[in-house]
Amino acid sequence: MTGVGEDQIVYEIAVVVPKRNVKEDNDGFDCVEVLVNEFRNVGLVVERVLGLSDEFIKLAAPLETLGTAAAKLQMKKPTHIGIDLQFGWEDVEAFVRQPDGSLFSWCERFQCYRHLINETVNKNPDLTLKFDHKEIRWEAGESLLQRLELEGIVKQVFPIHDETKRKKLLWSWALNCSDFTTQPIDEIYAYFGTKIAVYFAFLGMYTRWMIFPAAFGLILQLVDFGSLKLLVLPIFFISTILWAVLFFQFWKRKNAALSARWHLNFSVSTSQGYKVLGREWSSLHTPMELTKNLGIDKTKEKEAFQRYEWFGYLKRFRNDAIVILSIICLQLPFELAYAHLYEVIESDIVKFGLTAVYLLAIQCFTQIGGKMSIKLIKYENNENTEYRADSLVYKVFGLYFMQSYIGVFYHALLHRNFMTLRQVLTQRLMLSEVLENLWENSLPYLKYSYKKYRAVRNKKKREKGSTGKIQFTSRVEKEYLKPTYSASISEELEDGLFDDFLELALQFGMIMMFACAFPLAFAFSALNNMAEIKTDAVKLLAMLKRPVPRAAATIGAWLNIFQFLILMSICTNSALLVWLYDQEGKWKIEPGLAAILVMEHVLLLIKFGFSRFLPEEPAWVRANRMKNATQAQDMCTKQLLRSISGGETASGVLIPRKKPDGTDKTD
Amino acid sequence: MTGVGEDQIVYEIAVVVPKRNVKEDNDGFDCVEVLVNEFRNVGLVVERVLGLSDEFIKLAAPLETLGTAAAKLQMKKPTHIGIDLQFGWEDVEAFVRQPDGSLFSWCERFQCYRHLINETVNKNPDLTLKFDHKEIRWEAGESLLQRLELEGIVKQVFPIHDETKRKKLLWSWALNCSDFTTQPIDEIYAYFGTKIAVYFAFLGMYTRWMIFPAAFGLILQLVDFGSLKLLVLPIFFISTILWAVLFFQFWKRKNAALSARWHLNFSVSTSQGYKVLGREWSSLHTPMELTKNLGIDKTKEKEAFQRYEWFGYLKRFRNDAIVILSIICLQLPFELAYAHLYEVIESDIVKFGLTAVYLLAIQCFTQIGGKMSIKLIKYENNENTEYRADSLVYKVFGLYFMQSYIGVFYHALLHRNFMTLRQVLTQRLMLSEVLENLWENSLPYLKYSYKKYRAVRNKKKREKGSTGKIQFTSRVEKEYLKPTYSASISEELEDGLFDDFLELALQFGMIMMFACAFPLAFAFSALNNMAEIKTDAVKLLAMLKRPVPRAAATIGAWLNIFQFLILMSICTNSALLVWLYDQEGKWKIEPGLAAILVMEHVLLLIKFGFSRFLPEEPAWVRANRMKNATQAQDMCTKQLLRSISGGETASGVLIPRKKPDGTDKTD
Repeated sequence: MTGVGEDQIVYEIAVVVPKRNVKEDNDGFDCVEVLVNEFRNVGLVVERVLGLSDEFIKLAAPLETLGTAAAKLQMKKPTHIGIDLQFGWEDVEAFVRQPDGSLFSWCERFQCYRHLINETVNKNPDLTLKFDHKEIRWEAGESLLQRLELEGIVKQVFPIHDETKRKKLLWSWALNCSDFTTQPIDEIYAYFGTKIAVYFAFLGMYTRWMIFPAAFGLILQLVDFGSLKLLVLPIFFISTILWAVLFFQFWKRKNAALSARWHLNFSVSTSQGYKVLGREWSSLHTPMELTKNLGIDKTKEKEAFQRYEWFGYLKRFRNDAIVILSIICLQLPFELAYAHLYEVIESDIVKFGLTAVYLLAIQCFTQIGGKMSIKLIKYENNENTEYRADSLVYKVFGLYFMQSYIGVFYHALLHRNFMTLRQVLTQRLMLSEVLENLWENSLPYLKYSYKKYRAVRNKKKREKGSTGKIQFTSRVEKEYLKPTYSASISEELEDGLFDDFLELALQFGMIMMFACAFPLAFAFSALNNMAEIKTDAVKLLAMLKRPVPRAAATIGAWLNIFQFLILMSICTNSALLVWLYDQEGKWKIEPGLAAILVMEHVLLLIKFGFSRFLPEEPAWVRANRMKNATQAQDMCTKQLLRSISGGETASGVLIPRKKPDGTDKTD
Repeated sequence: MTGVGEDQIVYEIAVVVPKRNVKEDNDGFDCVEVLVNEFRNVGLVVERVLGLSDEFIKLAAPLETLGTAAAKLQMKKPTHIGIDLQFGWEDVEAFVRQPDGSLFSWCERFQCYRHLINETVNKNPDLTLKFDHKEIRWEAGESLLQRLELEGIVKQVFPIHDETKRKKLLWSWALNCSDFTTQPIDEIYAYFGTKIAVYFAFLGMYTRWMIFPAAFGLILQLVDFGSLKLLVLPIFFISTILWAVLFFQFWKRKNAALSARWHLNFSVSTSQGYKVLGREWSSLHTPMELTKNLGIDKTKEKEAFQRYEWFGYLKRFRNDAIVILSIICLQLPFELAYAHLYEVIESDIVKFGLTAVYLLAIQCFTQIGGKMSIKLIKYENNENTEYRADSLVYKVFGLYFMQSYIGVFYHALLHRNFMTLRQVLTQRLMLSEVLENLWENSLPYLKYSYKKYRAVRNKKKREKGSTGKIQFTSRVEKEYLKPTYSASISEELEDGLFDDFLELALQFGMIMMFACAFPLAFAFSALNNMAEIKTDAVKLLAMLKRPVPRAAATIGAWLNIFQFLILMSICTNSALLVWLYDQEGKWKIEPGLAAILVMEHVLLLIKFGFSRFLPEEPAWVRANRMKNATQAQDMCTKQLLRSISGGETASGVLIPRKKPDGTDKTD
């Protein structure tokens, strides 16, 4: 796990370069040779594998290399006394080890790798390197890897699977059918990093909790309550709402417990951020940096912060307004048109066809919406990439929310047609659950197969002489051809977790918002989620490249979206109940009363939503606090580390390991 | 400010003992003499003042004495790098000074005084002290002050006013009529401590913000909108709700800014708690202590914590259930009976009389309710005294809420009689505002006058010979006769702030919940609050003993109560609007629809209230985090302090003050 095991070297990163055609010795300035030498110089273990059309440089890092990189990165790591301190190689014993005994988590290792491979800078004067016959100028102080990426010679850098661990997880988790909801979360955390482990922990807990409403819904469907039917439904409604409220509160507690178990300090994991390999988001100039650079005094600093903060809210408000307006003006009419057509058409087959066409059409819309959102987010002052990702999630979820529910609302609210509603819900759930799962798992495989086929064809074209069957001999090449774990909307801010969470959220909304109309949906979803755990696991372990680890320790924006959906479901179910009890249409509601009720609900929503948008702590207070905490930690790092690593901490008594050498500086 | 000024000694604590009749020299074992000697031994400056019937021992502490006490108490204080570290006398320069330049805040000084006067323990074998002819056994290791308090010889220990500062504040704040809302908050903080300063900051901001709805309400009252009237009211409703939501969010921000300005770390200020002088709440055995004592291993510790946490919720749930049930079963019928009688009786004078009788009757009920609540809270596991006080506030507010609003609800909801409602509201507001203010200020003065009169009479009785006019010569005796700043319900957990906040909360509920019925109420309240600032200031500065400082840095439970009142007001105003638009009674609402609406609102309330009751972080995670943070701070205290006090921190560069002497221990 720690890069280099006792018995074997575990390669964790692969760099892909094309095969060179020219085989002659060109003065040792072949750029790939230089790159490999540079990798070796920084302490990485290199293995070169020749594939069909590309060459793969597999990299492994001995523990010492990782440690040096971590120290250079000034990485903060949890220590035995619970707070995070800067890593120092000499005080290695002070730091908490991972559950599997290794020093660095996969996330930290990945950070170190990224630092190491980008550190290959030219310390000599400008050099001219060669690739085939192309000449590449490597300027002094420039990173070779980045240069080669720009030139298109380094095609990709990606994390590769650890075959032993992968196989172990595949059998103990993905293909272990004895238990559907308990998962080896610690191993998933060790192999995939925090965010993916949190996703599976959430999915597992969600599915386990789902058993209660699923059973209740099933009973409602199977048992004929007769005249009690109208009494049982409100009870079902109340209990599902209570169930959802309890579930999310307990999930927050579970999340906190997981963070504690993995020694993740919330503050650190949220401020580290998530950077896609090689492609870092351009950092915005925060006022903190500005004041540091310009040396502005304290009162002006506060003012600058306040201006920055309010300007940020303004920009986000503008962006949100744009998104909401465009959804209402552009998407809503389209969705309503579809819903109306669906209602008008009588033949079931045509309906199904229409739905298929519609599903394809909205794919395009979503793509456009996602791209728009990403452009908008670039003009926001989000503190780190995880916040930016959250901002994207909120914006894009608006799109999906409209897509998924407008049609259903149309049937439920305008037509008051319960049978159609139930039919639509069944179709949607079936469609989404079956299709999504099929799509999720077959698409990567098809992509992979196509790529493999193309690679073999290309090879055959080039080497017309060899007519024998061409086979992939290296595992790394197969992995290279597998698709990455990426989001359907954009690859910039989110990875495949976006789609997986989206699926969950849309399903949750569907079953909760129309709980009274279709109690059986919970049972469907429970079954689907059990399958989802397995298919997602198989997808991650067998179908895709190993994903880039993300440091975020919570489910982020999705939690708020789920909470919002609970709110919505309270309102929609109340409306459904009203229509259910009033099938004769006797209950009249005056427009005035309805308007007041709508106003009341909007105000309640504002009351509860508002605190999410305006934080309780002004930006300058928060910045001060963070600065202070960091400063304090920086100051006592050295001293503290020595005492932790030297002495016994569990008992609270510290025995210095060695006589300190009299240096007492706290630089 | 720091106990001893440059030119004069500021006495801050007074100990009251009765005058002795026996004047002879009884072997030097007179207990008061011994006490005074003990005070002098611990480093306090003592002045003895003979009053009419009592003797007053005034105490002042030089900075050194305070510093030693603070170090012994292991008091945590903010340092220049922002985190709180244990106070050490030798590293005094590392600690942030108060805005007025003193080292210790009033709250910290008070803690030190309490420690110092209770520290007067017997280091010799058991001694027999004398008071008049009574013999008192002072056992070895026992605190003399506590012994004498038990014997009834020390009548009271109370903080005394600092005449210079008091006069300055009186003129610059209480009697400064040029500006009603801006107050010298920093000076209030320095003189009265955090909690009172936060109260006045809140009151000031609330009053300033109140100007907007007050103006709007006034316009609504004065301008005749004619047919637009029914359009303007909903706008007024929406804008007051938005106003309230915005106000409380901005208040939270302001509170955070105040905490930052006064260098209060939230964690510390909430965990320190508030202990009434001499009478400390018996500390409950937390599982942390249990595990420490018994040496239980880690997994068991977690289990113990979880059991403790859930047991705590159970106990609190039971208590809340008791309170809610008794309010509904006992108070509700009584209140409804009063409201009905009020409605039935025609004569205005009888009505007024009835109200007066009723007001007296509910005083008794409140007393009983308060005592019950305090008994219940003793069976809860609240972490510290501030939490216990919050728990009391929630419980007792239930009582007051029913008292204040049931009658109004009765008129508004059952009778749909707007005129009566408006009349009731005016009466209530007038009554509460005028009566409360009168009561608040005259009662202490009457109490004080009566006590003074009695003291003089007693003196006269005893000294029948001297027929001359007896006058109070010492200021400390006058202060002793003044009432303390105590809550009307109980003196154990809350001080007078309870009544002041209660008044604000009830007023807020009254004006918000019936905003649509009586928009003018905002203007009344704005005027009242302006007066309230001044009368409260006069009360604190001139009418009462100086209050015991409390460390809490927020308005605590009251914030949640205000938030709850906003929620309530959204619902009540919607109902009011419905009845306003439907004066002909045309709008019919079927009982089924009404039931569903009620259910929906209850669910919405549960959704939002629930997260307040079940924290997002399990108790064991939180305890771990706290333990870790404390451990880390304890470990680096010495080292860090030396570097902060020695070097310049503002620029981030540290220059050691002196060559460290090679010791490198981190005990």
